[in-house]
Amino acid sequence: MSSSVQPGRVLLVGAGPGPVDLMTVRAMRAVQEAGALLYDALCSEEAVALAPPGCIRIQTGKRAGKPSMKQDEINRIMLRLARRGLRVVRLKGGDPSIFGRVGEEAAFLNAYGITTEVVPGVTAACAAAAQFGFPLTHRGQARRVVFTTARVENGAMSHDWRSGADAQATIAVYMGAEAAPDLAKALVTAGRATSTPVAMVERAGAADASLTMTSLGALTSGPITTHGGPVLIVVGEVAAAAQTQASNASDCFREHASRTA
Amino acid sequence: MSSSVQPGRVLLVGAGPGPVDLMTVRAMRAVQEAGALLYDALCSEEAVALAPPGCIRIQTGKRAGKPSMKQDEINRIMLRLARRGLRVVRLKGGDPSIFGRVGEEAAFLNAYGITTEVVPGVTAACAAAAQFGFPLTHRGQARRVVFTTARVENGAMSHDWRSGADAQATIAVYMGAEAAPDLAKALVTAGRATSTPVAMVERAGAADASLTMTSLGALTSGPITTHGGPVLIVVGEVAAAAQTQASNASDCFREHASRTA
Repeated sequence: MSSSVQPGRVLLVGAGPGPVDLMTVRAMRAVQEAGALLYDALCSEEAVALAPPGCIRIQTGKRAGKPSMKQDEINRIMLRLARRGLRVVRLKGGDPSIFGRVGEEAAFLNAYGITTEVVPGVTAACAAAAQFGFPLTHRGQARRVVFTTARVENGAMSHDWRSGADAQATIAVYMGAEAAPDLAKALVTAGRATSTPVAMVERAGAADASLTMTSLGALTSGPITTHGGPVLIVVGEVAAAAQTQASNASDCFREHASRTA
Repeated sequence: MSSSVQPGRVLLVGAGPGPVDLMTVRAMRAVQEAGALLYDALCSEEAVALAPPGCIRIQTGKRAGKPSMKQDEINRIMLRLARRGLRVVRLKGGDPSIFGRVGEEAAFLNAYGITTEVVPGVTAACAAAAQFGFPLTHRGQARRVVFTTARVENGAMSHDWRSGADAQATIAVYMGAEAAPDLAKALVTAGRATSTPVAMVERAGAADASLTMTSLGALTSGPITTHGGPVLIVVGEVAAAAQTQASNASDCFREHASRTA
């Protein structure tokens, strides 16, 4: 490799919650112009298919419970590709700044002189709320929304649930399936009513997303059944408005387009 | 009006933080196919310009401190237009489910038999984090992120700041400029260190966004100066990573496109 090669940039790009039309235009263009694409298992095939011919494509895993590349390895691959002068796109589900390790990846690359840029995306909680028709904030019901995970890095339960005690907080728990009973117990212990509605959304945003309604009290009783997709748990009065029939705006528009064609 | 007219749908659409390329593809298509468009003052001219010729365009205001249509009036206009059979798009800055009153608007319309659908968007906090290069969650620094406003509907200070006491919570305060000193005092009283870094981002996501760095202690001392745009206040250790030089991925790509043209 010639030393005159300009190191490339790395774009840390949010793919949104799955459907390719829930990517931002900027994210879509980034993938379309990528020289190398490292993508998480949660990214849709349609999003990956946007990459141009000749683009190096590397799946990095990162789905809960499935084998994944180590973060160190992902970092080193990005560095190597960027040093070759390639336009590297690191494509992540949702928004990179929320549970996306964007800080770790940017810090690593910046330390080696590689410029990084972040393209934001629609995060899973916003996608779930849109799809199942409930708000995350709502006058008189929810004055704030908390995005959290149930467990911290070492696998222990996150211990500070004061944020959940506020009856007017919506709590959106990412990757929450396994820890759901412990989470529910922690929130009840923190003072949240057992009657608080809970919406559990698997594969939020995707066409095959599913919603299960329960309550905080019921959730304490045992692990929840999933179909292997990521589960977002939304706790709060707003969840009561969730419609079990998901809406999908793009379907609505396609239907309209065919009617008027 | 003939009674055989099918009532239209209302799409409650997130325009994202401003730049048209930070809209989702689905949101962009919704505007392009709108028969009537009601848009907030925070929506960019470029987004509004996507509407087709013949589309009824109504600016609803909704910028802090500026005269706005009353929510009731917006609701009634949407209902009237939908009953005419129009494809009504209600375009809001950011994500409709976060401080976007989507619940109120959907409930009103649904009560009159109008179907609503929500198209999610990139919320201001994600846009600010992407633009100024700091994460909202970060291993060992921020295990959760709280989206909140400083004041509740009646203008009083939101009183429950237990959620802010967790040193590992990032607090993103929407529309926070005026209430910044009271907010900072409340967080310090709740137990947050005065040394906690604070990033204040005006017009997050826009090309002319600005970042001011301060600390929670400094913020208690008085009102902050703004240029009239909406201010997002991000409190937490993660804010220390903010780069005063905003990055803008679309510029980067335009530059690349011209180099390779």
